[in-house]
Amino acid sequence: MLDKLQNFLLRLVWSIGENWAWLGRILNAWAINGVVNVCRHRPHPWSTVHDYTSWTSLTDQRWSARHLPAKKTADLPDTYALLGLFKQQDGIQRFGSKSTLLFPAFAQYLTDGFIRTRMPEADETDEVRRQNTSNHNIDMCPLYGRLPKQTDALRLKSEAAGKRGRLKSQFIGEEEFSPFLFDKDVVKPEFADLDEPLGLQKTLDNAPNPEALRAGIFAFGGNRTNGAPQVAMLNTLFLREHNRLAGEIERSHPQWNDERVFQTARNTVIVLFIRVVVEEYINHISPSIRFRADPSVAWEAEWNRPNWITTEFSLLYRWHSLIPNRVAWNGKDYAVEVTFMNNQLLLDSGLRRAFTDMSGQRAGRLGAFNTAASLWEVEARAIDQGRLCDLAPYTDYRHYVSLSRPRDFADISKDFRVVDFLRSAYRRVEDIDFYVGLFAEDPEENSPLPPLIRRMVGVDAFSQALTNPLLSKYVYNEATFSTPGWKAIHSTSALRDILNRNTVFDPLSDLYIGMTLPDWRPDR
Amino acid sequence: MLDKLQNFLLRLVWSIGENWAWLGRILNAWAINGVVNVCRHRPHPWSTVHDYTSWTSLTDQRWSARHLPAKKTADLPDTYALLGLFKQQDGIQRFGSKSTLLFPAFAQYLTDGFIRTRMPEADETDEVRRQNTSNHNIDMCPLYGRLPKQTDALRLKSEAAGKRGRLKSQFIGEEEFSPFLFDKDVVKPEFADLDEPLGLQKTLDNAPNPEALRAGIFAFGGNRTNGAPQVAMLNTLFLREHNRLAGEIERSHPQWNDERVFQTARNTVIVLFIRVVVEEYINHISPSIRFRADPSVAWEAEWNRPNWITTEFSLLYRWHSLIPNRVAWNGKDYAVEVTFMNNQLLLDSGLRRAFTDMSGQRAGRLGAFNTAASLWEVEARAIDQGRLCDLAPYTDYRHYVSLSRPRDFADISKDFRVVDFLRSAYRRVEDIDFYVGLFAEDPEENSPLPPLIRRMVGVDAFSQALTNPLLSKYVYNEATFSTPGWKAIHSTSALRDILNRNTVFDPLSDLYIGMTLPDWRPDR
Repeated sequence: MLDKLQNFLLRLVWSIGENWAWLGRILNAWAINGVVNVCRHRPHPWSTVHDYTSWTSLTDQRWSARHLPAKKTADLPDTYALLGLFKQQDGIQRFGSKSTLLFPAFAQYLTDGFIRTRMPEADETDEVRRQNTSNHNIDMCPLYGRLPKQTDALRLKSEAAGKRGRLKSQFIGEEEFSPFLFDKDVVKPEFADLDEPLGLQKTLDNAPNPEALRAGIFAFGGNRTNGAPQVAMLNTLFLREHNRLAGEIERSHPQWNDERVFQTARNTVIVLFIRVVVEEYINHISPSIRFRADPSVAWEAEWNRPNWITTEFSLLYRWHSLIPNRVAWNGKDYAVEVTFMNNQLLLDSGLRRAFTDMSGQRAGRLGAFNTAASLWEVEARAIDQGRLCDLAPYTDYRHYVSLSRPRDFADISKDFRVVDFLRSAYRRVEDIDFYVGLFAEDPEENSPLPPLIRRMVGVDAFSQALTNPLLSKYVYNEATFSTPGWKAIHSTSALRDILNRNTVFDPLSDLYIGMTLPDWRPDR
Repeated sequence: MLDKLQNFLLRLVWSIGENWAWLGRILNAWAINGVVNVCRHRPHPWSTVHDYTSWTSLTDQRWSARHLPAKKTADLPDTYALLGLFKQQDGIQRFGSKSTLLFPAFAQYLTDGFIRTRMPEADETDEVRRQNTSNHNIDMCPLYGRLPKQTDALRLKSEAAGKRGRLKSQFIGEEEFSPFLFDKDVVKPEFADLDEPLGLQKTLDNAPNPEALRAGIFAFGGNRTNGAPQVAMLNTLFLREHNRLAGEIERSHPQWNDERVFQTARNTVIVLFIRVVVEEYINHISPSIRFRADPSVAWEAEWNRPNWITTEFSLLYRWHSLIPNRVAWNGKDYAVEVTFMNNQLLLDSGLRRAFTDMSGQRAGRLGAFNTAASLWEVEARAIDQGRLCDLAPYTDYRHYVSLSRPRDFADISKDFRVVDFLRSAYRRVEDIDFYVGLFAEDPEENSPLPPLIRRMVGVDAFSQALTNPLLSKYVYNEATFSTPGWKAIHSTSALRDILNRNTVFDPLSDLYIGMTLPDWRPDR
């Protein structure tokens, strides 16, 4: 009741702020600081390297930072026994009430850029999962690669007029895509420095037509960007936008060389992307407040400190239950596991149709008893990873972000099956694993996320997106982006804005595009 | 006149602040913010990689940041012709009125830790001097190495009681030193990962007794730390302090392993060092205000942004004219070039005598016509490096740090020889090279530094020392340093405090130790 009143009042004040620019700015800054200030700010004293503060824990970013210090809990239940909380019951999928499939697609594309748990190589143990390969920044590495030599491999690097600053691409009919990675069954030599697509061999082994699947793998910067066609779709959108911007920048600055056109287009694409993160994605998550991507909020903020992705962040973003069991592409329905790494679906649909398809289907409900069978194994690995990193238990994190600390299992969910499950699995509510607690909570009213996930997403989203150096006080100006770049930034607040600049309008397929279901209305 | 009044008033207010803790804190914060806020804060939009803002210029720290964008000046005078401004006249050295030799020794030791211009390898051109090998932090890398494998090579790594957390060392009589790097004429295999001492071969080639010189080279973390015995002296002090602290920490935490004792001692040594930087070194430079190393000043400061050493900083710290032509060691007088890399002088003196010797001699006067012949070549290379990086001219930097922009050559110095030299060398005052202008200025009253150098040193000193992660809000506490470490931090504000803990009191040599000449009094 109090929540409803509060949400109503917030919406009222916000609607006034939308008409008065100065009030809107103040409200926005107040709201963002409120989201970030629920817990301690960086620098975090600890990382996964040591259980205490060391120069290594404060500076070596190959290890993941931690919000709370390591804490071992004795006598935890078996990982596979806990899977019972995640598994769909009788294969029945529950859907959420707010999100289209564009929401999980975007979440995956976004987080694959900086949540980069290091995966064990052939001769390594799971211990390496305490480390990461992240640049700890929103740098669009799925598009540009995470290392300079990868960026070089992905660039056209031509000084010819009409080609400056471009990323390599191919046209299939009217549609621009990234080049394919493979030539028959070998990686093209020009792409030798790219990271190998993660899980490709396993997917090929299980594919009905492995040759066709491999032929559709794109030369992308990210090793997870080929993971699902809706992720490849997002990267394709930003590939087109990069090349479109490079063309505009080259035309307005004919004296600039390939390097400068490229760098200026990349500056612009990164900031465009952050605008979408705040104004479409975060606002979709937010139950009441509409945030604006106003860089100046961070300029004097005490939370503006060097980014460093935490080990907790790498777990709380595993939203497997959002993935539905079946996905429709181009009018045909597929079991979700058939779509993994299957870019043929995107190639056949074309970019605009793919976006409308993803915007026309419901995402799963995030939470308990809703993960498809093909993802149970990764849920188990997530629980194990939390234990490998000695994460403090779930209730400590509630307290850490200024939420109430559950005293009883019944405080966690209104779903008696969840409460019964937890009570039978754990000795005490204080023992519940971080990962298990995150997904045992019920989604919040008007948000696709449960409260602890939403709080922690909010903290790290704002405090690591608005600290991007491109948004800093003396960098965020027209000189950094060129006139066409600056204009593009200010005419972008959602994916559809970018899509409309890069696809042809087709009355047959020009349906709704967005992360929020078109018929969704807030509960008051 | 106004300056004198201002300095008098500042000293008066400060003396009140010294008695009232809360007022002292506010005054100190106000003063530090005043020093840093004379110019733009980080992130700097540019680095030496591009003449414009790019993702690389904002994130790739192998390139040096820049305070001002690249700017080419046409028709500059020949570098060697400009050396006339630096060369001592008839070999006559001018001395400063405030500093002992401990001041330049400390400046060199300090800056060798983070001002690390990349030097060309055999097959490289001078172009690589636009890059750096810095960690961009005060991390005591001269002691610990700049790479983890170097730290490993320097550590004893023993779990035996009484040996945990120690750095490798040797005792020569009662005196503890680092181990020697060479075994006869080859580097000991255990030290293969250390950087080779810079300029060693050249120094050996010119040495009267190369075998003795090589035998005295220490296994240090820094490749310049063997450059002069007074620099080796400082590293030896911190080596002893590290091992002393490790012993105290081990005794108070007998359950801690080698790793934790090492890390905790290192945490402490880094912070001790920063305290000396602010409370002894910066206060020596400061004409009137006494600063305190209060970490909380940075906690809410808008200038608390990721460190990044600038290309300007790497030039303005080349204080060659501070180096006297002759240096006394252990009662004997040497031409300065004979002392380079000659650790035998330190070994023969012992640590305490070396400190008193350095504190008992005057440093040169920083500025024009005062560089010893052995350093002319490096002055020429510094001018060239400024041009290689297309640094904006001197007058632009005056303006940048809120100093008056000289309109005429006579505005730069009261020394008519300097003015005449500049007027005959440059067409216009606006053309003067950054490096040349820096050292053409007269030292400020009551400071060893001329005004532009002092301003720029102040900006980068505070804004990069107080941003050290060990001083951050949730890290700077007793848990990070242990009880003995925390106590050591709070009983250190000058080198002599550390020396007194690590050398035996000897009435024959217990003379003055400090950077400021004992008979110096401020001009009012």
